[in-house]
Amino acid sequence: MKLYTFAPAANALRVEMFLREKNLELEKVSVNVREDELFKEPFNSMNPFNCVPFLELNDGTIITETISICRYLDDQFESPKLFGNDNKEQAIIDMWNRRIELDGFLPLLHSVRNKTSFFKGKVVPGTRTNINQSPEIVERGIEMYKILLDRIDPHLSKNKFLFGDKFSVADITGHFMFNLSNILKIDFEQNYKNIYRWKLEIESRPSNPMANNI
Amino acid sequence: MKLYTFAPAANALRVEMFLREKNLELEKVSVNVREDELFKEPFNSMNPFNCVPFLELNDGTIITETISICRYLDDQFESPKLFGNDNKEQAIIDMWNRRIELDGFLPLLHSVRNKTSFFKGKVVPGTRTNINQSPEIVERGIEMYKILLDRIDPHLSKNKFLFGDKFSVADITGHFMFNLSNILKIDFEQNYKNIYRWKLEIESRPSNPMANNI
Repeated sequence: MKLYTFAPAANALRVEMFLREKNLELEKVSVNVREDELFKEPFNSMNPFNCVPFLELNDGTIITETISICRYLDDQFESPKLFGNDNKEQAIIDMWNRRIELDGFLPLLHSVRNKTSFFKGKVVPGTRTNINQSPEIVERGIEMYKILLDRIDPHLSKNKFLFGDKFSVADITGHFMFNLSNILKIDFEQNYKNIYRWKLEIESRPSNPMANNI
Repeated sequence: MKLYTFAPAANALRVEMFLREKNLELEKVSVNVREDELFKEPFNSMNPFNCVPFLELNDGTIITETISICRYLDDQFESPKLFGNDNKEQAIIDMWNRRIELDGFLPLLHSVRNKTSFFKGKVVPGTRTNINQSPEIVERGIEMYKILLDRIDPHLSKNKFLFGDKFSVADITGHFMFNLSNILKIDFEQNYKNIYRWKLEIESRPSNPMANNI
């Protein structure tokens, strides 16, 4: 099994934190995204969606999509189970992961891609096009993120992590959502006390791949 | 177990088609979304994200998010397994479902919510706000959808469904992506031959809840 990845990419870091929480070491192949290697062979045929990370199984099967990769590894390898231990836990954790990802992480990812000059010509993940950066999409990402923060702060007053006392993949997604929003300089301590506590809790984990960069 | 739902909603129809494919009958409670019942009790406390559908388990646990609900039901009930039969199948189907959902279904859902007058004041799912409808988000949804169509047409020249010969939850997501794009009047037969064949294949299934409305 080999993980094709590019260390600085947001989704590569999500998988990296997941691997550290699972105590897994995988063989890695670095693909230089910035030099457009994903659009060249053999990578273009392996993942026609031209994104990292992707996982190659021993039989040649390719699994793309960060969460699909992490879920597969969680199913294949032992504790801690970061997607839950039984069907009910799995459903609740999947629900929380989706809420964080669809209402926070992804809208902010689109904000960043539509704002920073680095992503000009690369606005849609895995593409090289002349699609314009859109100020309205930047703004919508921030609006959706704030709606999400208002919704999760009360939940975190009663729960250490999104799934009660158990750290899960949903918290990892949360961590990378915060990372995308650093630029917004939100005063969590003042405005979202419970989220602030949760955010610090996750950042302080030894698995945090950004710990040395802060 | 009870499913709280509102028959005409896009995500309610996704779960309905899934239930029909699984031959499952669930007790259903209709919540009138158009009369803002989701913002009233007991529904607001059951799902503070104010969306249908959501599932109440016998112990009172609430599962929201269409895919989390469907995955739970797939795990709990026997064949056909629409999320796959083993870890590898599950990973591939999850990957396809995410590609279709994140690159097609959701961008188009945001297009529709930012375009039609029906969604004024309800632009972000599960909210009542004065956030403006954004023409740039309408356009971006269509652009992302066309990128996805270009990517999946070759795959469907070699595969009956997204996961080879096996119908899966990813095909159901595809069906509802097409439903959101009807308004665009894309000539699939002319421009995307393989997608056209796949689209007809799914539409003709007895489980299609829109079959009588077409």
